[in-house]
Amino acid sequence: MFSLDLICCENDNEIFHDQVVALAPNVPALYELHFGVPMAGAVLSALNTRLDAPTLALILEQLEAKLIFVDYQYTDAALKALELLSRKNVSPPHVVVIPECDKSASSMDHKHIASDLDYNCLLEMGRDDFRIIRPSNECDPISVSYTSGSTGKPKGVVYSHRAAYLNSMAEIFRFEMRQMPVFLWTVDMFRCNGWCLAWAMAAVGGTNICLRNVSAEIIFDAISLHKVTHFCGPPAILNTIANAPATVSSRSPLSRSVNVVVAGSLPNPEILAKVEGLGFNVYDGYGMTEALGPATVRPWKPEPDSPLEIEQEIIRRREGLHNLLIEGVDVKDPKTMKSVPNDGKTIGEVMFRGNILMSGYLKSTETTRETMKGGWFHTGDLGVRHPSGFVQMKDRAKDIIISGGEAVSTLEVEAVLLSHPEVSEAAVVGQPDAVLNEVPCAFVRLKEGFGASAEDIIEFCGDQLPDHMIPKSIVFGELPVNFSGKVQKFFYEGDGQRQHQPCQLGIPLRLSICLQ
Amino acid sequence: MFSLDLICCENDNEIFHDQVVALAPNVPALYELHFGVPMAGAVLSALNTRLDAPTLALILEQLEAKLIFVDYQYTDAALKALELLSRKNVSPPHVVVIPECDKSASSMDHKHIASDLDYNCLLEMGRDDFRIIRPSNECDPISVSYTSGSTGKPKGVVYSHRAAYLNSMAEIFRFEMRQMPVFLWTVDMFRCNGWCLAWAMAAVGGTNICLRNVSAEIIFDAISLHKVTHFCGPPAILNTIANAPATVSSRSPLSRSVNVVVAGSLPNPEILAKVEGLGFNVYDGYGMTEALGPATVRPWKPEPDSPLEIEQEIIRRREGLHNLLIEGVDVKDPKTMKSVPNDGKTIGEVMFRGNILMSGYLKSTETTRETMKGGWFHTGDLGVRHPSGFVQMKDRAKDIIISGGEAVSTLEVEAVLLSHPEVSEAAVVGQPDAVLNEVPCAFVRLKEGFGASAEDIIEFCGDQLPDHMIPKSIVFGELPVNFSGKVQKFFYEGDGQRQHQPCQLGIPLRLSICLQ
Repeated sequence: MFSLDLICCENDNEIFHDQVVALAPNVPALYELHFGVPMAGAVLSALNTRLDAPTLALILEQLEAKLIFVDYQYTDAALKALELLSRKNVSPPHVVVIPECDKSASSMDHKHIASDLDYNCLLEMGRDDFRIIRPSNECDPISVSYTSGSTGKPKGVVYSHRAAYLNSMAEIFRFEMRQMPVFLWTVDMFRCNGWCLAWAMAAVGGTNICLRNVSAEIIFDAISLHKVTHFCGPPAILNTIANAPATVSSRSPLSRSVNVVVAGSLPNPEILAKVEGLGFNVYDGYGMTEALGPATVRPWKPEPDSPLEIEQEIIRRREGLHNLLIEGVDVKDPKTMKSVPNDGKTIGEVMFRGNILMSGYLKSTETTRETMKGGWFHTGDLGVRHPSGFVQMKDRAKDIIISGGEAVSTLEVEAVLLSHPEVSEAAVVGQPDAVLNEVPCAFVRLKEGFGASAEDIIEFCGDQLPDHMIPKSIVFGELPVNFSGKVQKFFYEGDGQRQHQPCQLGIPLRLSICLQ
Repeated sequence: MFSLDLICCENDNEIFHDQVVALAPNVPALYELHFGVPMAGAVLSALNTRLDAPTLALILEQLEAKLIFVDYQYTDAALKALELLSRKNVSPPHVVVIPECDKSASSMDHKHIASDLDYNCLLEMGRDDFRIIRPSNECDPISVSYTSGSTGKPKGVVYSHRAAYLNSMAEIFRFEMRQMPVFLWTVDMFRCNGWCLAWAMAAVGGTNICLRNVSAEIIFDAISLHKVTHFCGPPAILNTIANAPATVSSRSPLSRSVNVVVAGSLPNPEILAKVEGLGFNVYDGYGMTEALGPATVRPWKPEPDSPLEIEQEIIRRREGLHNLLIEGVDVKDPKTMKSVPNDGKTIGEVMFRGNILMSGYLKSTETTRETMKGGWFHTGDLGVRHPSGFVQMKDRAKDIIISGGEAVSTLEVEAVLLSHPEVSEAAVVGQPDAVLNEVPCAFVRLKEGFGASAEDIIEFCGDQLPDHMIPKSIVFGELPVNFSGKVQKFFYEGDGQRQHQPCQLGIPLRLSICLQ
């Protein structure tokens, strides 16, 4: 039994390194910045391109950013954010504009920012004799990733060189990569540095196929043209593949299997079966920004000829093998820090420990201390341990519904809803109830061309769930998602002052929908 | 660009941990000891089963071993070693005898050692509530591997938890392993802890097929029966496969490709082509005990329809990609520590730097300091750097021949000899010469049933090598190998006192042959 020390590369919440921000889609320049910035001794923050100007301004201020690289498509938001900063007398970062490949920034259609510089011109100014500035300590920061969290205000999550290094190695194994893979960039590079794959791909001598946008056609064409071996992203990517018109999916059949890793709630088994049928191997991950991406992963392999029910059961259990390089994954009582018994029943909080964790939240000593209480990272997710040792997720701590004293895992109800043949997406929240305090309420999006009624769906759930878990009302429509593309069960109503007022999706319904 | 610190887990040459020795072939017990011993807070030394009793006694004394696990087939040597220790008034370690699987030691045919204990009985005494003793620091030692070196006296090479951990991860990638591989133990587990694969296999959930002996029949049967995905060992294993009778290789054709990694001088391209033709993927590694096994590796892939000459050229160049997790591989002038130019010509010493290196030699501060001079591990091998950045091995520093002032790489001459259609094995050494000081002399073993003359072979070399590199004499016969199965160009003549008198193979020829 060997191990690495549990070195907690602690973040002292001070910034000793220059911060460089990037606001760009998955273009080659953003990939290059993952190397150039740390090699210059600075720290990279690749930001979500869907951020609005006020949030962007907040983050730039918190980071005390010295330099921002902005893709020409996003200069509008950047410009507004810089204006907001100057109104607060905060000195703005220098701006470098990333033009389309092989073009100059000045020829591109974008809002010009005073004293901006063209990315390609900057590269030309580079010196051949530049000496790489190596970190003085492996616990030095390499990047800051912003998490939208499920609860509002973005937090800066600091990654150390050590953690990024180990997670990059872990990704190679997790994705079952051989040497020189071909990676299709369907996951946002600004999300945990593309789950640390930006670095992992360089380590394995891989080819990066960069994409500004993702569509079924782009995916299938790239696979056919570039012999893609791996890609990943949120579960919605599976729907994109499964729902691709036959003209797209059939014109470029996969000549070999392609590995797809998704992190989040898996879609219904029908979609999975369809995606596997097209020749993709699907892997299901569970993780968060604080764990540098997926922390557990398992292949989703339907047994040949197994009835769909069994697959649904497998999906519903959402069990994962822990990341090879994570030292510990446990389910604990957060008060006593004791492990729950391996009985598959006792609910506790899922916790991680090891070297592949953030150093801490930027400038938030208190939040960091709380999240790392007792030497374990508190995920905020609830789960159980099975006698086999596997961990099964139950719900986000704040999403679980207590109905008449009974705990209702919204994930389990959602899994049943997703197994309904006409349901495409589902989210369950608590609805106030005079007698039971809370009851489950389901938000459901039906598949195109289907028209199941609320009664149909409630009846379907009644066949598979105990009474207290059956949704008492069904709301049809689109589901609101947050910056990260996750269904937003809680959200905050933003105004200029960015007051964060969590409200529950089930209650101010109209507002949640119009936020879309 | 990310990196880990270059933490040199320095060996202070003192023993603070209890040393446990194992003397066993690749049996399950030896695999288990790779976990049980470190989990008990002790350090494992798996010793070469081919060691003679005096060397074994020397090592036990140096290690101050507390406990020795001896396979029932090797109690004879162990008993003799213990007797030698008691003659020197050194307190002997406790002895545990490993019987054949599912048998008891007392039922086995072996020399009994006073107060010995049966391995299975020991396991039964284990307590369920035993708490793993974790290392207090990741730089703590996990194992000591003995290198026979090419020059006589075995040296104890100390591995840290950190280095073993990182190398295990590196092996997974180097062997291109997916999850749950099936590994055939053809490499000795006592060699760098089976190149750290003992731990790597546990990390990937692999199946270990343990073998007491290796033969073509055993390899092909195991592949067929257990669906082996990977194995490795010295290059001789490729000859074993290629020379397998058709009745063996054809009765169990490979249903899928199997990856084979070899470390050492590759056999001739005919053998390689034959092995690849049977469905094996061959990888060529270069390393040493101090680097925990192969430090560079590259796939050997013949281009389809390429003439054999080209493949020979590829083999002859022996270029390698450096281990993903080794921080630096360079060719330097050992005096100035400056890198040689990338001209493919200037010879320097091959050096490594990084986390996957030994902590040092046990109780040999001076040798350790010398080997790690300037912060780099000095391999003692000579090489050049090509403009592509690849490193090409030229020779062992002490094997290179200076003939009339010109350097002769014995490896290059051997590669040409091996490309002769009738040559099976070859070793080149320097022979004293009145005019040129030294001239190349070749030791050659012909393939079964062939009878090329010395003149034939010299003429063959003359077509491909400059004059000063052509062997001036050819000696036919078996080649002497050392404990590690390497051709022993230098050897030492042992007597009871273990005086180490290096003599060159080319000179006291009879002696070298009779040492076999």
